Amino acid sequence: MTKLESDEFWMELALSIGQTAFHQGEVPVGAVIVKADKLIATGKNLRESSHLTAGHAEMVAIAKANDILKSSRLDGASIFVTLEPCPMCLSAIMQARFARLVFGAQDPKSGGCHGEILRLLTTQNHHKPKITSGIHAKASKKLMQEFFLLRRADQGRQNQ
Amino acid sequence: MTKLESDEFWMELALSIGQTAFHQGEVPVGAVIVKADKLIATGKNLRESSHLTAGHAEMVAIAKANDILKSSRLDGASIFVTLEPCPMCLSAIMQARFARLVFGAQDPKSGGCHGEILRLLTTQNHHKPKITSGIHAKASKKLMQEFFLLRRADQGRQNQ
Repeated sequence: MTKLESDEFWMELALSIGQTAFHQGEVPVGAVIVKADKLIATGKNLRESSHLTAGHAEMVAIAKANDILKSSRLDGASIFVTLEPCPMCLSAIMQARFARLVFGAQDPKSGGCHGEILRLLTTQNHHKPKITSGIHAKASKKLMQEFFLLRRADQGRQNQ
Repeated sequence: MTKLESDEFWMELALSIGQTAFHQGEVPVGAVIVKADKLIATGKNLRESSHLTAGHAEMVAIAKANDILKSSRLDGASIFVTLEPCPMCLSAIMQARFARLVFGAQDPKSGGCHGEILRLLTTQNHHKPKITSGIHAKASKKLMQEFFLLRRADQGRQNQ
């Protein structure tokens, strides 16, 4: 069994939350917020069902943590997310002053945590979380691929 | 009287909403979402009172518009905001596929709508709203300056 304090443990939890989004027809991304080795909040992507532009897993988890800790700042906390955050979510993560951002699979198309975007955003906002990537990346990528394969198959059937 | 269809008219409304945030002790930023010359939703900054990291005026207005139009996409709509949006809000504005972003005062420190950040974010997300800036910029800047002057004075009294 994976140790409770490990990145792998929390990412497994984020993956299982992403899996529940999958079954609800949502792009399967899960997020978990942890502080001092304690679970603070979880979030899953719910953009389709909620109609929220900001319905990404990270934003949902951050809003819950804000409410639980009664603070817009989550200093010292870590956020674990199965997919590389987009610029909206990365900027929110920086503004909340997370100590760490841990993500699974990379998102070369819409991710905001690599290259120039990351450099510019972190320069501007004066706070940069410590970033770790690739934790259970294969499992996250597989979950995403299965979702989009299934969705394309559904769309194919509808178009017949 | 300013014409109903003009940028100035909607920005005056956004400024009056920012003013209500001022009286509640919030950084005074207001936002208005308009589609086909009709008001869809308004939002004011409420980060302090709501504890939400995403409590910026734009995010509040977008969430309301999502709910009203039952869609995470706000194609064809315009958003008017008294201050240059930060990268979180700009990314949300792009993901919602706004046709236009109109803002008042610039925010050289935390704004995401100028220089390299704008270029990179808009390249990545494949959708860029038409951006107009400087509408009632002086009034917006004055409102912000008054707020921070008052807050510093309050802090000075508390430290005495």
